Amino acid sequence: MALDQALSRLEIQTNGAGFTRIDGSLSDWIRNTRIQCGVVHLSCLHTSCSLTINENADPRVLLDLAAWMDAIVPQDGAGPLGANGQRRRYLHDDEGNDDMPAHIRTALTQQTLSLSVENGQLLLGTWQAVYLWEHRSAPHRRTIACHLIGEMQTNVRAVADTSTNLQRRNGEKLNELVQAKHVPEAWAEDGGVDTDVDLLIDRLHDIADDPQ
Amino acid sequence: MALDQALSRLEIQTNGAGFTRIDGSLSDWIRNTRIQCGVVHLSCLHTSCSLTINENADPRVLLDLAAWMDAIVPQDGAGPLGANGQRRRYLHDDEGNDDMPAHIRTALTQQTLSLSVENGQLLLGTWQAVYLWEHRSAPHRRTIACHLIGEMQTNVRAVADTSTNLQRRNGEKLNELVQAKHVPEAWAEDGGVDTDVDLLIDRLHDIADDPQ
Amino acid sequence: MALDQALSRLEIQTNGAGFTRIDGSLSDWIRNTRIQCGVVHLSCLHTSCSLTINENADPRVLLDLAAWMDAIVPQDGAGPLGANGQRRRYLHDDEGNDDMPAHIRTALTQQTLSLSVENGQLLLGTWQAVYLWEHRSAPHRRTIACHLIGEMQTNVRAVADTSTNLQRRNGEKLNELVQAKHVPEAWAEDGGVDTDVDLLIDRLHDIADDPQ
Repeated sequence: MALDQALSRLEIQTNGAGFTRIDGSLSDWIRNTRIQCGVVHLSCLHTSCSLTINENADPRVLLDLAAWMDAIVPQDGAGPLGANGQRRRYLHDDEGNDDMPAHIRTALTQQTLSLSVENGQLLLGTWQAVYLWEHRSAPHRRTIACHLIGEMQTNVRAVADTSTNLQRRNGEKLNELVQAKHVPEAWAEDGGVDTDVDLLIDRLHDIADDPQ
Repeated sequence: MALDQALSRLEIQTNGAGFTRIDGSLSDWIRNTRIQCGVVHLSCLHTSCSLTINENADPRVLLDLAAWMDAIVPQDGAGPLGANGQRRRYLHDDEGNDDMPAHIRTALTQQTLSLSVENGQLLLGTWQAVYLWEHRSAPHRRTIACHLIGEMQTNVRAVADTSTNLQRRNGEKLNELVQAKHVPEAWAEDGGVDTDVDLLIDRLHDIADDPQ
Repeated sequence: MALDQALSRLEIQTNGAGFTRIDGSLSDWIRNTRIQCGVVHLSCLHTSCSLTINENADPRVLLDLAAWMDAIVPQDGAGPLGANGQRRRYLHDDEGNDDMPAHIRTALTQQTLSLSVENGQLLLGTWQAVYLWEHRSAPHRRTIACHLIGEMQTNVRAVADTSTNLQRRNGEKLNELVQAKHVPEAWAEDGGVDTDVDLLIDRLHDIADDPQ
């Protein structure tokens, strides 16, 4: 069972602080990789926005989540009410009052996520959506690395066939199976994707067919 | 070195807000996959409970952790004391006062975790345990996707033998090795799990044994 | 396309509460694995320190981040100002006033991270660095499990060559390719790392060269 991998960048335009749902674009990309079963790893390549999974139905959940974050990590350039009843100004303020709070919000939420892919579909719960959470006030262009490691349908099927047939331990049948792989039309149909194992099977044909 | 994968769902009954330790069940499942070395990816398929790794010894750590969360994300239907000294009512309250806080607590903790498996064991520190953290007040039935990508013991052993023997570059020895794999009892012992490479080795036997 | 894996421990000496940058050491380790494309999984094997990705340029970002954490999770042995205006003493205080806050800070930040490796390099954004965040006041020796699953350069190159050549479907060329792999100098150059596929190719040489 050979695993394959695909790495791509998802580019997302945000509209300032708030949530951009990304599981739709991610699902499109997963479909294009043709990987049917595996794990997709998301990595947010920034320090002032992050990833989160939350409710996909009632939009008020996201409003309340954002309001909670505003209370705990205010964006006016000073920290929260501390145990001493004081608020402390941030030292790092060159990029605006909303920048340091964005770094803190990033640290409190997810920077990487790893999600299963099953039958070519992202495996999420009924109420789950994956969001890019923009923490800066201004719109930004953001990049998420998407890295999928898993198996393509063709490989999965091949493994199943092999193990079924090998249980019969029948040399003749194996021979037929290997010969069957030599049909040029079948090769054309499988999209021209070849593996080391394909190369070896071909070499076996060369040897077996050789009259010596 | 061929990697294999296994995907399953761990079903967990919670008793309302609090921690349910899951690394025991997870270890049982890992053992059943027969994968010896790899990475297990956990994904919590809900938006009102989450995953966390924390102290496995003194239960007061979990009590203090829960109390901290109650102070910062109270469950009475309003947000925390903000910088303005006010508390704001949540808009999303149809599912009870404890629901919106549960969504926020989920966002602040882990939704996915990726842990190493070594020698068939979950690789955790001495004091670490993996918990499902239920954030709703009522008991719930929860699902965690468990996805393990790695190598089975048989594959790992085969690779070690191969590289040791190939360093000798001895055709006779290789021949014996390949022939040794043909013993039917050995096949029976290995549980009938066959790979593409097994199929090729069989085909080599067919060719080599053929008197032509 | 065969995936390989490497698992190691990164040992880090901290100087008490604060940030230790680890992506340099991690990159060195990745280079040593010779894996060119894959995903590296980091797991912090402790419950009082954690992982985070944040700004690598202005050190004041880390100072402000630490100050925010001090305000929200104070280290004097009592919890934050709750909605009731009170602070609650931690029950778990045997290991010092800074221990329970360290467990809470760990729960609020990352315990595992999964990052892409591309062209043998850790894939991070321009401003990102990976830090071990020590939450205890005293210096500690910490361990991070580093687990990389991916493909070595040699495998990637072999796959590319194979698929290019197979498109020509030329038995002679394939034969030459396979024979070319038999050059002892080439074997020496590739560092003596052998795979199941190498073993099979050798066995094919034995059969093909055999005068029978």
